[in-house]
Amino acid sequence: MFEGPVQRLIDELSRLPGIGGKSAQRLAFHLLSVEEVDARRLAAAITDMCDQVRLCERCFNVAAGEECSICRDARRDQSLVCVVERPQDIVVVERTQEYRGRYHVLGGSLSPINGVGPGQLRFEELKARLEPESVQELIVATNPTIEGDATAMYIAREFKPLGVRVSRLASGLPVGGDLDYADELTLGRALTGRSEL
Amino acid sequence: MFEGPVQRLIDELSRLPGIGGKSAQRLAFHLLSVEEVDARRLAAAITDMCDQVRLCERCFNVAAGEECSICRDARRDQSLVCVVERPQDIVVVERTQEYRGRYHVLGGSLSPINGVGPGQLRFEELKARLEPESVQELIVATNPTIEGDATAMYIAREFKPLGVRVSRLASGLPVGGDLDYADELTLGRALTGRSEL
Repeated sequence: MFEGPVQRLIDELSRLPGIGGKSAQRLAFHLLSVEEVDARRLAAAITDMCDQVRLCERCFNVAAGEECSICRDARRDQSLVCVVERPQDIVVVERTQEYRGRYHVLGGSLSPINGVGPGQLRFEELKARLEPESVQELIVATNPTIEGDATAMYIAREFKPLGVRVSRLASGLPVGGDLDYADELTLGRALTGRSEL
Repeated sequence: MFEGPVQRLIDELSRLPGIGGKSAQRLAFHLLSVEEVDARRLAAAITDMCDQVRLCERCFNVAAGEECSICRDARRDQSLVCVVERPQDIVVVERTQEYRGRYHVLGGSLSPINGVGPGQLRFEELKARLEPESVQELIVATNPTIEGDATAMYIAREFKPLGVRVSRLASGLPVGGDLDYADELTLGRALTGRSEL
């Protein structure tokens, strides 16, 4: 429909998640209308990421070298490992500035319905870390969903016999939220997990 | 926050229109998770567009060479020029398959409030085409907005004295629409522009 290179860019953009044909067209014409150096910088950023980014050999976070910046940081407590589903979850936990341990990225959560069993997640790699890093506690920070909960249960069952403590992030009312708007499941969890004052 | 190359890609993506920080992050991690060749193909599509696409010397449509595919097409009626605001409007008109003339891209519409006067649009370039291409009629297909209407009026005032017919796309009810949902301005235009049966 458009001249070859423009149509090819629209096609590539519309493969991105959440970007339909119309948005892809708008983005392509935006890139056509901005300074050429800006468009090229986006292309370079994608290429650089392909060239430079891989998964950390230890925790499977995104890393610019063999290990990610967190695993390289000697000040982090290596006896504490926070287990997350995806690399981007690490940034969310880091933002709290309350966690000084390391991470382990599973690569997803157990979901038999989607064909994800323990073999597809990085449990073996996590087991291999326990002894060399003298891990004391695993903090399971999978999503508070059925799959995330199942993954947390699995970790508890598999890893507690190996002599590590396994804990799970608390579920309950979001801070600043309104009781009125809490769904019954969340409120139920908040009740079960109530703490004495 | 993220490792350098990942954060740089997120920054570049979030400069795109309609893409906020969260979407940029999701897109970046999507590009990290797909086959490397797919991510590189997007980068290549952007670079190719920068390398190959420029504006048609005649009508300022996007073009892979000196002239766009429409201006190169000898079967198009060169006495008829459809005046549009942006290159992407051409594709919309082309989709009707009812137009066999050429185009002229103004590069926007008159909008004194945004500092766009006649000097910022490609009226002189259009004037220069009249004689060599023996243009008989200009069909003004600017948007049916205040700016688009003002631009159409300006074109009528400037070009009719030069001996060309100037027409404007009809405003009225969208085909398949419901009278109930028509706004009063559109309905007013439909009344004024009514045609005898």
